[in-house]
Amino acid sequence: MSEPLVRNIRLFIAYDGTNYLGFQIQPKGPTIQGILQDILSQVLGHKVKIRSAGRTDAGVHALCQVAHFLTTSDKPLEVIFRALSGLLPRDISVWQIEEVDFKFHPQRDALKKTYQYNIYNYFVRNPLLRLYSYWVPEPLNISAMQACLPEIIGTKDFASFRKSGTDIKTTVRTIYSAELKWSDTFNHLLVFEITGQGFMRYMVRNLVGALLEVGRGKMSLEEFKEVLEAKDRRVAPPPAPPQGLILKHIEYKEIKIIDRYPPYQVQL
Amino acid sequence: MSEPLVRNIRLFIAYDGTNYLGFQIQPKGPTIQGILQDILSQVLGHKVKIRSAGRTDAGVHALCQVAHFLTTSDKPLEVIFRALSGLLPRDISVWQIEEVDFKFHPQRDALKKTYQYNIYNYFVRNPLLRLYSYWVPEPLNISAMQACLPEIIGTKDFASFRKSGTDIKTTVRTIYSAELKWSDTFNHLLVFEITGQGFMRYMVRNLVGALLEVGRGKMSLEEFKEVLEAKDRRVAPPPAPPQGLILKHIEYKEIKIIDRYPPYQVQL
Repeated sequence: MSEPLVRNIRLFIAYDGTNYLGFQIQPKGPTIQGILQDILSQVLGHKVKIRSAGRTDAGVHALCQVAHFLTTSDKPLEVIFRALSGLLPRDISVWQIEEVDFKFHPQRDALKKTYQYNIYNYFVRNPLLRLYSYWVPEPLNISAMQACLPEIIGTKDFASFRKSGTDIKTTVRTIYSAELKWSDTFNHLLVFEITGQGFMRYMVRNLVGALLEVGRGKMSLEEFKEVLEAKDRRVAPPPAPPQGLILKHIEYKEIKIIDRYPPYQVQL
Repeated sequence: MSEPLVRNIRLFIAYDGTNYLGFQIQPKGPTIQGILQDILSQVLGHKVKIRSAGRTDAGVHALCQVAHFLTTSDKPLEVIFRALSGLLPRDISVWQIEEVDFKFHPQRDALKKTYQYNIYNYFVRNPLLRLYSYWVPEPLNISAMQACLPEIIGTKDFASFRKSGTDIKTTVRTIYSAELKWSDTFNHLLVFEITGQGFMRYMVRNLVGALLEVGRGKMSLEEFKEVLEAKDRRVAPPPAPPQGLILKHIEYKEIKIIDRYPPYQVQL
């Protein structure tokens, strides 16, 4: 009897996080991982365990989440892709599926992640943006917020911006770029985009929470620096809410791609 | 006893139609009109009846719906505005409120209405656009669709594009412009924008339904013209679904504005 061939499958996933308790499986309610594993297990005929590039918290969205799983099934990628398209709820989409090098790991092999945080900053609400932005009605001092951004670029200890109550090996992270500007498309939509080697849980939302305090005039640039330098979660303002956050892109080191469906490079 | 002063109040309203049975009140479930009337009656202390520039059907969205009501209350506009902001659900927003000329009527005084219809045209779904667009996975012949647009400009009998089973005085309508182009913002989003003096129920969705048949190569330009000229609803393809449709703008003839809140011109 020959050993079954094990394939390493990479998934590119988009989802609207509104109705989920986050990516990571948990017993209290629906999660992206839970739904994907259930459907993949059903399609492939064996129990599937997926690992992602990183969890996203309850209510957070993704345009590009990356995950992988191992399978002994020899079903063509197209069949798996079409089954997922047919069976997944409309707020989750697997938009590309690849068989990759057996050694590929979605978290370890990630070089950069980019998150976007949307702030709808106007006196009145826009109902069509409510699920994908944080409504801040009071005027913000945008240039004061922008003046803080150089402070978070580089390799720094972001202990003040971790999730309170979490225990992690290191709170040092490397941020490559951070930008805050008005959307070209939607009036009054302020877009924060940040790219780093990796992020702690709540880190982007905690950074946005502090930037908003600066924008509201409740915190100065000096005080923002002090919060960062304190390396203490308790001195930083509360996180911005989840619905403004979108995991936008993950860049990987080059790996061997054995097969891909759709056969061309998909771009959402 | 002096006669109570009656004020004519104009509302500018935006809503996400996903969870409503349309604008117009009905007993079967929640409507925009029903919710607005309930809250306004509560705020003003008398039964309020609003009239809109036109109904939108179940699932259709609006960035600019216009309605009016009469009130004997002397509550300042700011108080009414703030009460609405506080009491309305998050998927409905009254973004400007005005006291206007007593003769103002939202339907009769409208000069032009603009609707937008969003088609997400890509092999894979984008979950973040699903509530505000129609997903069409198969490739569309865009230039064939665009070639039909001159046919619908002008004053024509649009009987073929009315809602089936409806009885209306005249099916002649004037269309000023119609455009179909790729969004500058979202990859794969095709935006149809149409401006006319007025529209029948289902007219925009029926036009889009026919244009999509042309895009799919199932109908030629000649056949599209024949459908229009037949003046018979039964020969036209089914309507495109409601979630792609947004009532975007209504232009009014100049009227006397007595008071306004917010005091400046709001623009969503």
